[in-house]
Amino acid sequence: MAGNSFGQAFRITTFGESHGKGIGAVIDGCPSGIPLSDKDFVKEMSRRRPGRTSIDTPRSETDRVEALSGVFEGFTTGTPIALLIHNHDVKSEPYEILRKLFRPGHADYTYFKKYGHFDFRGGGRSSARETAARVAAGVVAQKILDPLDMVITGYTLELGGIRAEDIDLEAINTNPFYCPDVAVIDKMREVILRAKDEGDSIGGIVEVRVRGCPAGLGEPVFDKLSADLAKAVMSVGAVKGVEIGAGFETARLKGSENNDPIIPTGFKTNNAGGILGGISNGDDIILRTAVKPIPSIMIDQETIDREGRPDRLRLTGRFDTSAVPRIVPVLEAMVRIVLADHYLRAKSNAINQEKGC
Amino acid sequence: MAGNSFGQAFRITTFGESHGKGIGAVIDGCPSGIPLSDKDFVKEMSRRRPGRTSIDTPRSETDRVEALSGVFEGFTTGTPIALLIHNHDVKSEPYEILRKLFRPGHADYTYFKKYGHFDFRGGGRSSARETAARVAAGVVAQKILDPLDMVITGYTLELGGIRAEDIDLEAINTNPFYCPDVAVIDKMREVILRAKDEGDSIGGIVEVRVRGCPAGLGEPVFDKLSADLAKAVMSVGAVKGVEIGAGFETARLKGSENNDPIIPTGFKTNNAGGILGGISNGDDIILRTAVKPIPSIMIDQETIDREGRPDRLRLTGRFDTSAVPRIVPVLEAMVRIVLADHYLRAKSNAINQEKGC
Amino acid sequence: MAGNSFGQAFRITTFGESHGKGIGAVIDGCPSGIPLSDKDFVKEMSRRRPGRTSIDTPRSETDRVEALSGVFEGFTTGTPIALLIHNHDVKSEPYEILRKLFRPGHADYTYFKKYGHFDFRGGGRSSARETAARVAAGVVAQKILDPLDMVITGYTLELGGIRAEDIDLEAINTNPFYCPDVAVIDKMREVILRAKDEGDSIGGIVEVRVRGCPAGLGEPVFDKLSADLAKAVMSVGAVKGVEIGAGFETARLKGSENNDPIIPTGFKTNNAGGILGGISNGDDIILRTAVKPIPSIMIDQETIDREGRPDRLRLTGRFDTSAVPRIVPVLEAMVRIVLADHYLRAKSNAINQEKGC
Amino acid sequence: MAGNSFGQAFRITTFGESHGKGIGAVIDGCPSGIPLSDKDFVKEMSRRRPGRTSIDTPRSETDRVEALSGVFEGFTTGTPIALLIHNHDVKSEPYEILRKLFRPGHADYTYFKKYGHFDFRGGGRSSARETAARVAAGVVAQKILDPLDMVITGYTLELGGIRAEDIDLEAINTNPFYCPDVAVIDKMREVILRAKDEGDSIGGIVEVRVRGCPAGLGEPVFDKLSADLAKAVMSVGAVKGVEIGAGFETARLKGSENNDPIIPTGFKTNNAGGILGGISNGDDIILRTAVKPIPSIMIDQETIDREGRPDRLRLTGRFDTSAVPRIVPVLEAMVRIVLADHYLRAKSNAINQEKGC
Repeated sequence: MAGNSFGQAFRITTFGESHGKGIGAVIDGCPSGIPLSDKDFVKEMSRRRPGRTSIDTPRSETDRVEALSGVFEGFTTGTPIALLIHNHDVKSEPYEILRKLFRPGHADYTYFKKYGHFDFRGGGRSSARETAARVAAGVVAQKILDPLDMVITGYTLELGGIRAEDIDLEAINTNPFYCPDVAVIDKMREVILRAKDEGDSIGGIVEVRVRGCPAGLGEPVFDKLSADLAKAVMSVGAVKGVEIGAGFETARLKGSENNDPIIPTGFKTNNAGGILGGISNGDDIILRTAVKPIPSIMIDQETIDREGRPDRLRLTGRFDTSAVPRIVPVLEAMVRIVLADHYLRAKSNAINQEKGC
Repeated sequence: MAGNSFGQAFRITTFGESHGKGIGAVIDGCPSGIPLSDKDFVKEMSRRRPGRTSIDTPRSETDRVEALSGVFEGFTTGTPIALLIHNHDVKSEPYEILRKLFRPGHADYTYFKKYGHFDFRGGGRSSARETAARVAAGVVAQKILDPLDMVITGYTLELGGIRAEDIDLEAINTNPFYCPDVAVIDKMREVILRAKDEGDSIGGIVEVRVRGCPAGLGEPVFDKLSADLAKAVMSVGAVKGVEIGAGFETARLKGSENNDPIIPTGFKTNNAGGILGGISNGDDIILRTAVKPIPSIMIDQETIDREGRPDRLRLTGRFDTSAVPRIVPVLEAMVRIVLADHYLRAKSNAINQEKGC
Repeated sequence: MAGNSFGQAFRITTFGESHGKGIGAVIDGCPSGIPLSDKDFVKEMSRRRPGRTSIDTPRSETDRVEALSGVFEGFTTGTPIALLIHNHDVKSEPYEILRKLFRPGHADYTYFKKYGHFDFRGGGRSSARETAARVAAGVVAQKILDPLDMVITGYTLELGGIRAEDIDLEAINTNPFYCPDVAVIDKMREVILRAKDEGDSIGGIVEVRVRGCPAGLGEPVFDKLSADLAKAVMSVGAVKGVEIGAGFETARLKGSENNDPIIPTGFKTNNAGGILGGISNGDDIILRTAVKPIPSIMIDQETIDREGRPDRLRLTGRFDTSAVPRIVPVLEAMVRIVLADHYLRAKSNAINQEKGC
Repeated sequence: MAGNSFGQAFRITTFGESHGKGIGAVIDGCPSGIPLSDKDFVKEMSRRRPGRTSIDTPRSETDRVEALSGVFEGFTTGTPIALLIHNHDVKSEPYEILRKLFRPGHADYTYFKKYGHFDFRGGGRSSARETAARVAAGVVAQKILDPLDMVITGYTLELGGIRAEDIDLEAINTNPFYCPDVAVIDKMREVILRAKDEGDSIGGIVEVRVRGCPAGLGEPVFDKLSADLAKAVMSVGAVKGVEIGAGFETARLKGSENNDPIIPTGFKTNNAGGILGGISNGDDIILRTAVKPIPSIMIDQETIDREGRPDRLRLTGRFDTSAVPRIVPVLEAMVRIVLADHYLRAKSNAINQEKGC
């Protein structure tokens, strides 16, 4: 009811605040017998950590994930896997001003309205730090998808208005922006540095592509694969829009242009983004999300205090200039979690046998 | 687990196929003491029915909603409200070809892959007819929101590339397109008639605006109001994208442009679309959805049969040329359902007292 | 949240009041491809109907179950199965007194306290009539269990103090009391007729035995098979107690007496009632429930009216003298629903391959 | 789906194994603004710890509960409260034999059948140690109930056949057995010491009584307060039976004896155990559970190994001789959790205003 759980067959419950003792996730529903150790989390946690680009916030989160339960002698046991990430390097003093003022674009105002009493330090529960627990859970989700040879790849399609034109999935991990088009990396760096100099921030678009998803995942009517993916990525704080396949483009297409012809080997085109009637069709799943500019800026802003009196706020400290690219592994993780959940759900109510469904 | 329920405190479970005996919804969680009668459903069901525009499918669905339970002497009792809509005027013969061939853009292929055995007549469970049950449930949801003076209004922002520029909410119900800009109605009619003549279909964009939503609705982390709205509308078959507030635009804005300054009376701008950190901020909620062109077209298409052999399909019969405008009351209903659910959820875990939360 | 759904993978949502238009259930999660027709419900509905014993209430409920959805050409489709049972022969006039007075032992008082406005006719939602929907859903659950050769058998272990001593499962359906010991049938008839003559009612104990349940069903920690069975049967209005295996007897046993020795073919004894650590062990599952005497009696009783003033109530009309034996198929149905649910759940999170798990 | 969560509005998810790094619970749905600190857990954790009676297992669990999240400056924030209890003093070597043999009466056999791979040390997830997380969660639940002046009291009604006859709630905490009848304490000590000398174990009956529960808690049809209480206590490993109010006694009562007459101040008797139609009636809630003898005994037992070959097992080490009295605070905690959950649920769907519902 209170919204901190996600998924049904593969269900995660996350907890923790930015400046509390730690954050984490409890995974319920992971089958037994899957190899898992604390080392398995290192790579993905590192992909999300700051300091990748020269311009990121220097808070050095080590973000070591510790599995407290559910693993025995190197394999999962089918019981809940509690993942804990301790918080380090948290200085709450700079946040004392937030005891009084609401930051525009942040959740301070709405948490105050909803809860009265809330942990305002660094955004508390609404901090992007919360997403570290999602990335950890995504690692376990991927373990479930591994036997299906399912590959989930996210990348920066657009950053501050600079768009990747030629998509080369091989290029993504060769640059700090997770950009699939090496030709625009310099422009991306330029636009982000300029915003940084201005004390401002920028947004972008992230695309996630799933290869190897068998046909048959997704449930009618409400738990369509597309609907659950939309919820999953929209639940990430910075995301303000999502589209599947041709997405908003389809609004201007005719049916004869938008329908993907079916051929013996699959589909001739992929405007559907791999999902028909809410169920995967075996083609690549393609999803794009709009990522808003980070609301923390070092520019003077109009706001009010808790008593409703007008005031002005100029944040100091060091913040990321954009949620992109750090949000890329987070969105990949959410897609993995949705697919693992639907894969396990399909086992109990469907007949698809392709690739082991 | 099988995906035919939505919501938690206000929970609907829908059932039924396009050409079965009927469709319906069971609502669990509606408080007692709310006035409700079968007549209350007439207006909204009529807004969704075909035949509104001269070009709609002539299947004359009366769509009378009958409350089988949960209402006594004119008021809800707090027990489940089962809503039943009988199917009429269903001719299944034209669909016999679908026993063999998959329609491009429809769910035939994926239902076959998932279930093996499925009701292919008129799309069966994946038919847009299923949305009638949502509209009925939305009527009950609105009854819960009424005391808050919450007004949910959907309209056709774009149809076949023709966009409403001046938004006048008063104009919406004065024309068959639910278009808020009377200046473009003729162009909308033109574009839809042209597509119809070609045996083709068109898509559009629908915007939904919520006035009077109190601050404090929505739950961190996963059940953000924005996330649940996204899921709700993406669960409608024709929707391929959703955005809140400035949406995909934010990807190209700077933080200083996108942040909404906070003033004693609320917010100076509304790029957030009324939601911050997943919780309503008291400003208007604004949501846009991309509606794909209806896949049923009277143009020859490439497809395969159930054995995977290539074939061609040319549908005959009469279909809607666009899911817009009939989808407008459906999307409104989904927004109502999400808001009623979160309003009731907030009662059990929050302190907000504004407007009765 | 409002409590009218049960189960997770096999999930039923029921609706309806005793004197409303009808009652029913929506089943979500039934796999596709299972043979099902309206005729399949006849036998079980008939086992629950009144008039079996010469002393039952003469309200002739035909209780024909109509599947409104989810079945196509004789097989389930994996989509929701809506089951509807129309109400007939309902005379509400005798219940007008209940607009004013609370019946002792019934839910009138608590529904009034909880809901203020409620349907008091014949108990409304709290009527035993609600259990007809459970029996219908149980028929579908059994279809899922059929391939496992799982046999669920309920019987009257005790009625008004008369206990069946020799359990012969073959005898159960040869007498109107579902009594497994033909030697005590006459005494049971005698005790029930005596109570009837006095305008009084009696209680009993019903035992349900499951044969053929594979090992491995049930989930730690909270959704133990025993815990879900307990909830399932305790959710039936008349049930005031439940025990598994040796049950309350174990409180007086020593560990050396209570532990069931494990042998290559299974277990030497079955004090555990087929469940260890909340998971089925492959032995017979044995469960007993205490059924209270029906609160409707034709004897003068002390009560209060809605304003809290003392009054007296003497019900007229004709009522069952005992919930036993009519409750037997209801309890069987609940056990079937729990087992079908856990069987489907096990498919998504466990490895057991015995008998197709 | 995998069964490690309980409750809806007040929802707990537990994790951890007996000999892993720790155990814990995540609570989702606790309202904001409730005073809470780590010290609040000390008393209840201490009531559950071994060493209370001279005969308990000497494993000195300190069981310090640490709240990792959801609390800020001494008050809850409405976000998830993660409670962690580290494991100490865990010697796994004595359990190596369990890699090979199944202990009769324990979950080893069924976990092996279900999961193949499982943590057998000290019972792993099926260990009674898991209940420490429940007790911790129960402390938070009680905080929610405090403003209602609700008092939940559990006690040992029977131990090894010795029954408390005169119930004096004041006496419970004056003796190590949580026995409400000081006259039988010596006999209880005697019977437990005798069993201990024999290397055997004994069972008992625990009664829980709730004072001050307002009328109106509990949901029809499946989530009756009685049904959820039954599930809650049956989910505790050692419990094999549960009854409410007169319970199994009602099976032998007549309606005229069992019905509780209603009077202006409430009810004249309380055979219903405070629950009518699944909803609290304002009278004391009374619940009894059958607790089986601990299966770990130091007596030679017949069993099989993982390959199904017959073998014999004689456990060494030191075990509790009875789950009673240590199980008393666990059962109290489960009752508190159910009541807190239903109290919060009632806020969203009912009208009862008594005592703040």
